[in-house]
Amino acid sequence: MISEKMRDYVKNSSAIRAMFEEGRRMASLYGEDKVYDFSLGNPNAPPPIGVENAVMEILKKEKGPSLHGYMNNSGFLDVREEVGKTINKKHGTAFCPDNIIMTVGAAGGLNVVLKTLLNPKDEVIVFAPFFGEYKSYIENYDGVLSVVSPDMETFLPDLKEFEEKVNKKTKAVIINSPNNPTGVVYSEEFIKQLSNILERKEEEYKTSIYLISDEPYRELVYDGMEVPYLTNYYRNTIVVYSFSKALSIPGERIGYLVFPKELDDFRDIVDGANVATRILGFVNAPSLFQKVAAKCISEKTDLSYYDRNRRALYEGLMKMGFTCLKPQGAFYLFVKSPESDERNFCQRAKKYHILMVPGSSFSCPGYVRLAYCVTYETIVNALPKFEELIKEYK
Amino acid sequence: MISEKMRDYVKNSSAIRAMFEEGRRMASLYGEDKVYDFSLGNPNAPPPIGVENAVMEILKKEKGPSLHGYMNNSGFLDVREEVGKTINKKHGTAFCPDNIIMTVGAAGGLNVVLKTLLNPKDEVIVFAPFFGEYKSYIENYDGVLSVVSPDMETFLPDLKEFEEKVNKKTKAVIINSPNNPTGVVYSEEFIKQLSNILERKEEEYKTSIYLISDEPYRELVYDGMEVPYLTNYYRNTIVVYSFSKALSIPGERIGYLVFPKELDDFRDIVDGANVATRILGFVNAPSLFQKVAAKCISEKTDLSYYDRNRRALYEGLMKMGFTCLKPQGAFYLFVKSPESDERNFCQRAKKYHILMVPGSSFSCPGYVRLAYCVTYETIVNALPKFEELIKEYK
Repeated sequence: MISEKMRDYVKNSSAIRAMFEEGRRMASLYGEDKVYDFSLGNPNAPPPIGVENAVMEILKKEKGPSLHGYMNNSGFLDVREEVGKTINKKHGTAFCPDNIIMTVGAAGGLNVVLKTLLNPKDEVIVFAPFFGEYKSYIENYDGVLSVVSPDMETFLPDLKEFEEKVNKKTKAVIINSPNNPTGVVYSEEFIKQLSNILERKEEEYKTSIYLISDEPYRELVYDGMEVPYLTNYYRNTIVVYSFSKALSIPGERIGYLVFPKELDDFRDIVDGANVATRILGFVNAPSLFQKVAAKCISEKTDLSYYDRNRRALYEGLMKMGFTCLKPQGAFYLFVKSPESDERNFCQRAKKYHILMVPGSSFSCPGYVRLAYCVTYETIVNALPKFEELIKEYK
Repeated sequence: MISEKMRDYVKNSSAIRAMFEEGRRMASLYGEDKVYDFSLGNPNAPPPIGVENAVMEILKKEKGPSLHGYMNNSGFLDVREEVGKTINKKHGTAFCPDNIIMTVGAAGGLNVVLKTLLNPKDEVIVFAPFFGEYKSYIENYDGVLSVVSPDMETFLPDLKEFEEKVNKKTKAVIINSPNNPTGVVYSEEFIKQLSNILERKEEEYKTSIYLISDEPYRELVYDGMEVPYLTNYYRNTIVVYSFSKALSIPGERIGYLVFPKELDDFRDIVDGANVATRILGFVNAPSLFQKVAAKCISEKTDLSYYDRNRRALYEGLMKMGFTCLKPQGAFYLFVKSPESDERNFCQRAKKYHILMVPGSSFSCPGYVRLAYCVTYETIVNALPKFEELIKEYK
């Protein structure tokens, strides 16, 4: 008796839940430390100490109902001011509170943007491999997903294919760099080429094509890598940010949207996003953590925690003969499956208590994703198991 | 370039924003204490001291990333257990964590339920006067709103009309007691009659009709009034609860859903609601405040604060000749407009710096809603202004 659309989602999502439950079952059978669960993107690095201090300070300073009360659907004015200022300082932009809407994480932000923009049958282009939830977010508003394949060497989107897939119905493009699941960071050169194509296509079709930059991993980059700020390259860019990974607080559901005033139909889009925030039931981003995020906006989770994991896992797996892309950001490693059907490979890995996500979940079969936001010990202890696993293929 | 559906919403919502901005404008012109803003349901009673203490205790006790991390989409297990136990103790039910999903407030909860249940064109019955957002929530999932009028004496739904409006396409009924905007609490007798009709109609059409009980004001009742727990009366009941008003923390966005195991298609509905929580972008209810809510579940905002306001405003207005229903719960007073077009009346009231919401916003023209969740002083100072206002009609 649930809706037909939901019936399909439930069927598909049971696979993910099955894996999660398999992990729980294994842990109870063999012990937590004998299960190597690389399937979840749940940060294991603790939040910076500033987070807890911020909570204490805010509670001490702000008394009365306003701290926990409703505010404008966009969020607290002072918080949005702080967010704008911080972006401006880092990226030479000129955002004020009018350009910022606080959101219930990046997932909430993406839903707000897509609800605002999409008419039924509008197309949204995503670049494989991509975070599987994009498909559901787009379908929530009866949009149509259009997938562009990657160059299999660099895992950058194939721009020739992209250019062919942009058409009159293309309303938006979702870009995710640093990328989940590959860890690739798109270079400035790449962004310029992409923007160029978009501008030409807008001109050709006399439409507006919005580039939605989903950036939950912006702060998680290694080796001094730079992540270009896309509003500086393409006029119709909307930024979707989350503090989940930067501050290790994904459960608190706090992020923001950036709408540059240069956007086509800027005023309508911001008004629409406010209404969408309200009617989708978010109403506003959680109030206390809006203030916490603003106070901790220049803090960052311990990057060396993930970097150590990254190097240990990447080098360990390469040494034993696995093929993988060295991640430049985020906390995922995308590994080539030693057999063509990577779901079989994931199945085999379970024998060694290793849990991974098949690339099919990211529209990229033949690969598997390992989330290395686990403890260092998990990686150290898992490596000999991977060694046994790869031996099966030699 | 925003979606057509959103374009209409933006147009309509500008009326509400206009009023809000009018209030802000007046306050800056005449001073905050010279503006009597009864338009917003933003609790002015402070949260019980337990809320702040709970935050401190939780931060002291729970270290590491798990407190602020992802959990199951349903929410923390211990929190759901506590919620179930508390309901069981109060209402003689038998809920366990499996029956509970923590939500981003009641608005988030309602969206999750409607997303789970509705196929396009499914009908959802609501009882006028009703919270205007229900319309948007239902239309988010292409459902069709069906409105049943009230008995104009008691403001209880007209059950004869209700019976006529239930049909084969009726998927759900939303009920809201204590009611926004009338403050009416539906009696046990009324609930029994309603359940009876629903059961007969389910039998007649061989369908499941879900009764969605939206209960953000459950804890706000006066004069020892009892609010029946609907799962005890009708099998296919889903409860939507929010801590926003009970704990004066609406900005924190925390509530829960109750799915009794007796529901038709219980397993599908709970699985569906979990998926809906994920794909709508909520992902999970804010983590710290899940724990805070569980710790404070038996606490309550200072009811005497609202009760004093209720009596002062009701008695004051009645004495000067206004007609209004004595509210039994919530913090709203529904007042008959002295002229048939209540929007004119609201307009005139602005001269006296009084802001109210026209009943048309609740599908009940000819009345206005006053939210008395303001300071007591606002009411005391507003009464002479109301006196001047009503004189215009004598």
